[in-house]
Amino acid sequence: MASFARQEHQFLGAWGGSGPVVTTTNPSNNEVIAEVVEASMDDYEKGMSACFDAAKTWMAIPAPKRGEIVRQIGDALRAKLHHLGRLLSLEMGKILPEGIGEVQEIIDMCDYAVGLSRQLNGSIIPSERPNHMMMEVWNPLGVVGVITAFNFPCAVLGWNACIALVCGNCVVWKGAPTTPLITIAMTKIVASVFEKNNLPSAIFTAFCGGAEIGQAIALDTRIPLVSFTGSTKVGQMVQQQVSARFGKCLLELSGNNAIIVMDDADIPLAVRSVLFAAVGTAGQRCTTCRRLLLHESIYQTFLDQLVEVYKQVRIGDPMEKGTLLGPLHTTASKESFLKGIQNIRSQEEKSF
Amino acid sequence: MASFARQEHQFLGAWGGSGPVVTTTNPSNNEVIAEVVEASMDDYEKGMSACFDAAKTWMAIPAPKRGEIVRQIGDALRAKLHHLGRLLSLEMGKILPEGIGEVQEIIDMCDYAVGLSRQLNGSIIPSERPNHMMMEVWNPLGVVGVITAFNFPCAVLGWNACIALVCGNCVVWKGAPTTPLITIAMTKIVASVFEKNNLPSAIFTAFCGGAEIGQAIALDTRIPLVSFTGSTKVGQMVQQQVSARFGKCLLELSGNNAIIVMDDADIPLAVRSVLFAAVGTAGQRCTTCRRLLLHESIYQTFLDQLVEVYKQVRIGDPMEKGTLLGPLHTTASKESFLKGIQNIRSQEEKSF
Amino acid sequence: MASFARQEHQFLGAWGGSGPVVTTTNPSNNEVIAEVVEASMDDYEKGMSACFDAAKTWMAIPAPKRGEIVRQIGDALRAKLHHLGRLLSLEMGKILPEGIGEVQEIIDMCDYAVGLSRQLNGSIIPSERPNHMMMEVWNPLGVVGVITAFNFPCAVLGWNACIALVCGNCVVWKGAPTTPLITIAMTKIVASVFEKNNLPSAIFTAFCGGAEIGQAIALDTRIPLVSFTGSTKVGQMVQQQVSARFGKCLLELSGNNAIIVMDDADIPLAVRSVLFAAVGTAGQRCTTCRRLLLHESIYQTFLDQLVEVYKQVRIGDPMEKGTLLGPLHTTASKESFLKGIQNIRSQEEKSF
Amino acid sequence: MASFARQEHQFLGAWGGSGPVVTTTNPSNNEVIAEVVEASMDDYEKGMSACFDAAKTWMAIPAPKRGEIVRQIGDALRAKLHHLGRLLSLEMGKILPEGIGEVQEIIDMCDYAVGLSRQLNGSIIPSERPNHMMMEVWNPLGVVGVITAFNFPCAVLGWNACIALVCGNCVVWKGAPTTPLITIAMTKIVASVFEKNNLPSAIFTAFCGGAEIGQAIALDTRIPLVSFTGSTKVGQMVQQQVSARFGKCLLELSGNNAIIVMDDADIPLAVRSVLFAAVGTAGQRCTTCRRLLLHESIYQTFLDQLVEVYKQVRIGDPMEKGTLLGPLHTTASKESFLKGIQNIRSQEEKSF
Repeated sequence: MASFARQEHQFLGAWGGSGPVVTTTNPSNNEVIAEVVEASMDDYEKGMSACFDAAKTWMAIPAPKRGEIVRQIGDALRAKLHHLGRLLSLEMGKILPEGIGEVQEIIDMCDYAVGLSRQLNGSIIPSERPNHMMMEVWNPLGVVGVITAFNFPCAVLGWNACIALVCGNCVVWKGAPTTPLITIAMTKIVASVFEKNNLPSAIFTAFCGGAEIGQAIALDTRIPLVSFTGSTKVGQMVQQQVSARFGKCLLELSGNNAIIVMDDADIPLAVRSVLFAAVGTAGQRCTTCRRLLLHESIYQTFLDQLVEVYKQVRIGDPMEKGTLLGPLHTTASKESFLKGIQNIRSQEEKSF
Repeated sequence: MASFARQEHQFLGAWGGSGPVVTTTNPSNNEVIAEVVEASMDDYEKGMSACFDAAKTWMAIPAPKRGEIVRQIGDALRAKLHHLGRLLSLEMGKILPEGIGEVQEIIDMCDYAVGLSRQLNGSIIPSERPNHMMMEVWNPLGVVGVITAFNFPCAVLGWNACIALVCGNCVVWKGAPTTPLITIAMTKIVASVFEKNNLPSAIFTAFCGGAEIGQAIALDTRIPLVSFTGSTKVGQMVQQQVSARFGKCLLELSGNNAIIVMDDADIPLAVRSVLFAAVGTAGQRCTTCRRLLLHESIYQTFLDQLVEVYKQVRIGDPMEKGTLLGPLHTTASKESFLKGIQNIRSQEEKSF
Repeated sequence: MASFARQEHQFLGAWGGSGPVVTTTNPSNNEVIAEVVEASMDDYEKGMSACFDAAKTWMAIPAPKRGEIVRQIGDALRAKLHHLGRLLSLEMGKILPEGIGEVQEIIDMCDYAVGLSRQLNGSIIPSERPNHMMMEVWNPLGVVGVITAFNFPCAVLGWNACIALVCGNCVVWKGAPTTPLITIAMTKIVASVFEKNNLPSAIFTAFCGGAEIGQAIALDTRIPLVSFTGSTKVGQMVQQQVSARFGKCLLELSGNNAIIVMDDADIPLAVRSVLFAAVGTAGQRCTTCRRLLLHESIYQTFLDQLVEVYKQVRIGDPMEKGTLLGPLHTTASKESFLKGIQNIRSQEEKSF
Repeated sequence: MASFARQEHQFLGAWGGSGPVVTTTNPSNNEVIAEVVEASMDDYEKGMSACFDAAKTWMAIPAPKRGEIVRQIGDALRAKLHHLGRLLSLEMGKILPEGIGEVQEIIDMCDYAVGLSRQLNGSIIPSERPNHMMMEVWNPLGVVGVITAFNFPCAVLGWNACIALVCGNCVVWKGAPTTPLITIAMTKIVASVFEKNNLPSAIFTAFCGGAEIGQAIALDTRIPLVSFTGSTKVGQMVQQQVSARFGKCLLELSGNNAIIVMDDADIPLAVRSVLFAAVGTAGQRCTTCRRLLLHESIYQTFLDQLVEVYKQVRIGDPMEKGTLLGPLHTTASKESFLKGIQNIRSQEEKSF
């Protein structure tokens, strides 16, 4: 699986790229696994323009037929469930069961969206005027922009793209710059389904790239709705840019979750829950447990048990069976984590 | 309040009656409080025919305007809240706070139905055929029959009639034969609202009478929906008759509710709950607690406390302040109750 | 395809039958295509009892997991789309495109129901009491009975069974006595999916048989909901029997549809619509056009054009390409049709 | 009605103001009708702080009880329907039937919201994990900010405040700086209802003032949702400020509506519709018809008829019976209108 050839991103219903060549690495051993040609701004314009054209075709297709395409996308992903799960583990660094679980999530979203494709009901509303009624019908927006983060490259795409597609919208996707192979793999699978159905694969257009592409999406008036998942800081910028042009924004930003454990809690259950919430995906989830508020009467018992279960966590290669905790996604994350530990230690020294 | 003159039921938007003259009594002292002329079958036909005619007018009025009429009905009842509450206490026999509470319930239903009158939305459903959609619009049924029981003459009417009216249906109501004054009072109030709005008061047509009128409603093909509240035995007959003509039925029948008290229950709270559930409305509710399943470990404690609170229940005239338990509604009910006690006693003797 | 061996119906998660042996024929040429052993009442009891047991398992499975099973059923039917379509054409007699279209309908229902399996939401309702709320949760009924008619053996099953299954209900199905091979084929496919998932195939229990089995379902108190599709006369009996035991009934009965053509209609479009509505499924649909109300000003033009298009209808073997009108389902249907024609002719003679 | 004394705005459940004294004028004759003390920023802080405190009380009241308060607000407004309608006509300048119609709209919103107060249902969602379900419950946001425009001072308040109140939110309202008497009158009526129910009138807090108060609301982190109705330019600024602090925004901004008249249109009906859409509220609606696209074949006929009906429009004092077109709201509006006419004339000269 380390032998990925140089990959190019997809646009215009075709594959290509004329931007910078970047490398993608296995976070578990920092070995390069592939080189990828990112999209230039010229590529963006060509791809976006093809997507905007494809919108005329896609929105004219009856919703249940769009649902049938999404069903086929779900089946195409299901056929590659284990391959995609391994790729997630290889490039993002999450343990294999989490990788497979995440791909399953986008498959589930496809199945769910198929059902929705027959339920996009409008309303007929009684009016106070005689022989009069009001009709409320849902129309597609056109193109929906989806900017996703490194930690859930497939699932977050699924929550947004599956619903957007059955609603009659085309999708412009920018995955994380550090997970380009997943972007490419997903896009190839989705494109193959559109092609098999003689539909323009530009209905689902994806770009590999960084902040420049992301900002282009935020500013593009052809994209009335932008979904952004990532840091609070960047999300705020995206929201400002999108709302400045009266676009709509869906934001899924950072979290700072605490778990509160009271004196009458089932301690072993709570300990296991905290472990799962703090260690899962190597703590790189928006829902990760970051703080622990313990009732004083169970404080020491809880901590003792927690330290004990932490000791049993197998750290290692995420693709190896039995590993519970894989690597952080990048070297920068690792350094930031070590710095955090240092900070905490120095605060502890001060407080005693 | 004992000086009610002879009353006649309402039909044809007018008041009258040519059926048998019956008396209605105060269950607290068995004194006659009024004589009422019931509806003959000829009266039924005239009234039903007027109601059926009125349906053409009522269903053509926009739903929010129908809501405005129902709002006015609510206000008219609100203005008579205490009078109607006292009448309920006098004729049905429930304690005064329950009488007032029940009238409040129909007022609440009116207010709720006003809101619904702007929400009777149909659906516009996406089709799998291009340039095609399906529309689902709710139309009134015409006339809805409502047969209510003695124990909640106002509330049960409200649940059915308020919704039926905003949906564009006329209502044919038969109250219990033993609460004719309530039927008459309610009908006069409702009729006055229709009249003030220059609408036929036959939109809400009520009959005083017994099984003959009830059966006429069940069999009448002009009434596509019959709501029946009462005994399981009669409900089953009504259902058979209505469904034999492919009408729709709403049934609210008898109950046989048990309360289960476990060993970790809050005993004083559970005791009070059982008291309320068993003694409220003198046990004449479909939701009355009829059986008690007690965990053996709290069995004796619970019973001791229950006997204690039962001793504090003030029995007496339901219109008197402080009374918690009024009379059973009829002499027949009382005899049936005493027989039940006797049965239980003889079973106890056998089981020891 | 004419070489079907003797088939036995399924119950108890196993296949078998000890009732009468019946033959099933090709309505196109009246040749026997198979012998089938129907269910005896003893078989019914064994099968129903297995189904009732399986309900405990099925209702405990989370709704989205039930949806996954239904998705697999859809896929299993999709894999056999053309075979099942041909079997429908062979045994029921509808033309092949209609046969395939009907199987597609149950596949679509499966896909739709998968989406619903994540939307069976209950409600949390605000209460007028402080610190209090009401919860309304949907629970499975247990076993749902489905009695279907000869004209749509697959589609009608789909509308009922797919929804029932995701809602957590087991299904007891009785197909038409004259389409037992379809009953058997469908059941084998559905059973294989349950078996592959290590679930009791009795979750979906089917019987071949006639009125005796149908009546057993109507009377069986273990079946709280019975869906019946068929004649108005039998539907009324089923409704009476089911409601006598306070069960719920879904009825899909006969129709008597008219098409009204006004003077400003698009005549060629209207003519084609009438043809499709009257000739489709050889006029054996509940939605078949039975009457034509024509504005006098277009009366003759319309009839002339209709006669013209009727002449072009190719009548013949329903499995042959190009056939538009296949046989009536049974010899009895044919005789009843001819008698109807005779009646009309004698009326015409009288009226001139 | 010209004898309004100096008025002070309401805050802290009390009345007062320490900001600049402004005058409000009758746009029909430019006479001063009252002087009003606006809120200073110190007043804002005191009022907002009282409102924020009141939120704890209001959100703990059961939704149906909040509905009852809103019902009483509706009744209090209904009792003053004609007075408020006249005040709208006097201060805003719209014709009397429009003034009364607008007050009726907020009354209708109250009635509608009462119904909603029993329908703010959460969801119980099936989970894919056994013995697990998800609950989605709607909680109040706390304080909702409502900034309204001069053209519909009552109706726009109603759409926002009635829903906010039944949902358990307090309301901070800033009306237009040029309609302070309406702000004061509405607030006094609403406050009287809260007081009668022994609730803090700060649940509904209103300020007279201009951009400074508006901006304070936009920036105030105690206000998680801001509804703004007004110009596109200001709306954009509000949205930027609210979203910069991750607040939610509801915007109701400018329009630029066209009416398209095709060659097969009912010309007299279309002419009347255009007149109503262009002249109503003196063209000061977001839904006002600003452009007319006429099919060339009916162009001249349409214009001729339109000119004819325009000639019949009675212009004058909006409070006088028969007036169809009242004054523009301010001298600035009038000048902008005249300038627009001038522009159009000079363009016409150029184009010929």
